[in-house]
Amino acid sequence: MATAKIVRGVSPPSRVLLLLRSRTLTSAVRPYSAATSPPSKAVVYDQHGSPDVVTRVTELPPVEIKENDVCVRMLAAPINPSDINRIEGVYPVRPPVPAVGGYEGVGEVHAIGSAVKGLSPGDWVIPSPPSSGTWQTYIVKEQTVWQKIDKRTPMEYAATVTVNPLTALRMLEDFVALKSGDTIVQNGATSIVGQCVIQLARLRGIHSINIIRDRAGSDEAKANLKQLGADEVYTESQLEVKNVRGLLDNIPEPALGFNCVGGKSASLILKFLKQGGTMVTYGGMSKKPITVSTSSFIFKELTLKGFWLQRWMSSDKAEERQSMIDYLLGLCHNGKLNYELEVAPFDDFHTALEKAMGKRGSQPKQVLKF
Amino acid sequence: MATAKIVRGVSPPSRVLLLLRSRTLTSAVRPYSAATSPPSKAVVYDQHGSPDVVTRVTELPPVEIKENDVCVRMLAAPINPSDINRIEGVYPVRPPVPAVGGYEGVGEVHAIGSAVKGLSPGDWVIPSPPSSGTWQTYIVKEQTVWQKIDKRTPMEYAATVTVNPLTALRMLEDFVALKSGDTIVQNGATSIVGQCVIQLARLRGIHSINIIRDRAGSDEAKANLKQLGADEVYTESQLEVKNVRGLLDNIPEPALGFNCVGGKSASLILKFLKQGGTMVTYGGMSKKPITVSTSSFIFKELTLKGFWLQRWMSSDKAEERQSMIDYLLGLCHNGKLNYELEVAPFDDFHTALEKAMGKRGSQPKQVLKF
Repeated sequence: MATAKIVRGVSPPSRVLLLLRSRTLTSAVRPYSAATSPPSKAVVYDQHGSPDVVTRVTELPPVEIKENDVCVRMLAAPINPSDINRIEGVYPVRPPVPAVGGYEGVGEVHAIGSAVKGLSPGDWVIPSPPSSGTWQTYIVKEQTVWQKIDKRTPMEYAATVTVNPLTALRMLEDFVALKSGDTIVQNGATSIVGQCVIQLARLRGIHSINIIRDRAGSDEAKANLKQLGADEVYTESQLEVKNVRGLLDNIPEPALGFNCVGGKSASLILKFLKQGGTMVTYGGMSKKPITVSTSSFIFKELTLKGFWLQRWMSSDKAEERQSMIDYLLGLCHNGKLNYELEVAPFDDFHTALEKAMGKRGSQPKQVLKF
Repeated sequence: MATAKIVRGVSPPSRVLLLLRSRTLTSAVRPYSAATSPPSKAVVYDQHGSPDVVTRVTELPPVEIKENDVCVRMLAAPINPSDINRIEGVYPVRPPVPAVGGYEGVGEVHAIGSAVKGLSPGDWVIPSPPSSGTWQTYIVKEQTVWQKIDKRTPMEYAATVTVNPLTALRMLEDFVALKSGDTIVQNGATSIVGQCVIQLARLRGIHSINIIRDRAGSDEAKANLKQLGADEVYTESQLEVKNVRGLLDNIPEPALGFNCVGGKSASLILKFLKQGGTMVTYGGMSKKPITVSTSSFIFKELTLKGFWLQRWMSSDKAEERQSMIDYLLGLCHNGKLNYELEVAPFDDFHTALEKAMGKRGSQPKQVLKF
């Protein structure tokens, strides 16, 4: 799939008044000095609610850079659905308000504390695990927050690697021991996770069956996914047959399915799965629950589980996480992992936000460029 | 719970014409000799359909007892829901028609082939794993089919141990590593599996939360289950509150749930389960599917699985199966495992069948006595 990268220019820096010390906003003002960050232009929300109502772009004053701190000038950060849910207050884990939006992104080291080793100004870093407050121009956090990455990585991929591609990679690893020649089935296949699943599976010789919504342009979407390496792509209405598995020609029945839609679309995954298969739910775009027959559990012996990246990220697997991120960024750098993004200048934050909220029709994921 | 054992007398033997050679019915007739079984009075069905329509009680002629065969005079056999489903033709695994009904039971060794060792006339045996054709007075099958059991076991428990109590025992073992002080939650708690779960959990120091239907007599049912060792018993309507877990006083939230009902009753189990818990479905008495929210999978990290005893039984675990059956029969013998049964004379087969089919209101499990 050709990626659409629409760069509309970068917003100029500006200077204002509020103080951000990590995630805590107060009204104190500190003097600017060599041991402080520049002021930071940030997307702040003081209460939970609809993001287009409760967020405002404002400038936070300089904060102190302590001996173990790193001051990072942010380069880019995406607007993910979970960012929207955190601002709405409906996400199970969220920062206390007032808070700065955003959860992942990439930045360049601007200044380091006196005790920091292994990072220098100019290095590229990402917060790993992701942590809140990436929608701003300067962040000061302890060195342990930051993972240094290869600067050759395309910026918009570096900004988005820790949520969607990592979800795809983990789901292919954590539930069923897949080997070359096996098959997976997924819905929501045009999502970034879906696109990554197709490509990461293909790299391991794993076939993919992909389910997409019926919509104008579905033929183009099918062609795009097949270009990424999808074996089969069906719209939901194509699967309104009794024996969906009869549609498969030369690939084995899938032992693993990924569901990010729910409702009827999840049931289609269950129909494809082979005896003893597993369906992993990681999203619910239709806002409809998953309905399963008794016999699917007893006689077809299916297992249903969920995947929550934030839980996995907060577990004690720092080394594995870092090497996975390096692996994924290497694939991005080498052109083996591609997905559709739209880069939006930070000055146009509210336009990008409306697109991310679905208020302007179907749009690619929005990546803020600072 | 006091067990209701209503013995209505035993049917006299009778003699007729058809030949049963194991599960195959033919019209050949063999002469009676020392190396043949007595004729067998049997419940036969020639085609799938409603059991009260397609079954007939008839007499099958003697069959040869080969050197490795054991001829067993059946003493008792239950009418299980899966027996009904096999005759209806809706069970995934079923014998070819024509067939004799029934799948488990207990009998006494009547005669043995010349090469049989370790079994003598008068011994009690059960088919283990259960196998089809137990609704008849004499069965001839190879010695490997039969497991010798302790004759001190109450007959109606020996006849029913391999399906329901074994399901309860396996479900407590196979999904979550439970320790003393843990809790399970189940619906359909008045079923035999439900009664066994309560008692087997109690023996291991495991608490049980039990859900029963709203119905006349629910107070009595609650008292009976508490006598068996249930910690908590709720009717479904009692659980129409937002925070069901707030109802629990002194017992921990359950990590494991058993569902044999489906529909709303299954949702109540999901509400009780703690973070990361597992629900095992082994039946669907309401004939309604299971509906699960996306967030139950992602944020509550629930796992949903199924249990099918027949699959477990057909696996290569003969020794483990035998020792479990001995353990369960020992508990029955010692009065530590009790459940409600109704013993019905074989002559009244069609009355017992109607009760088992639910045509005469709520009835205990029917056990045919030959």
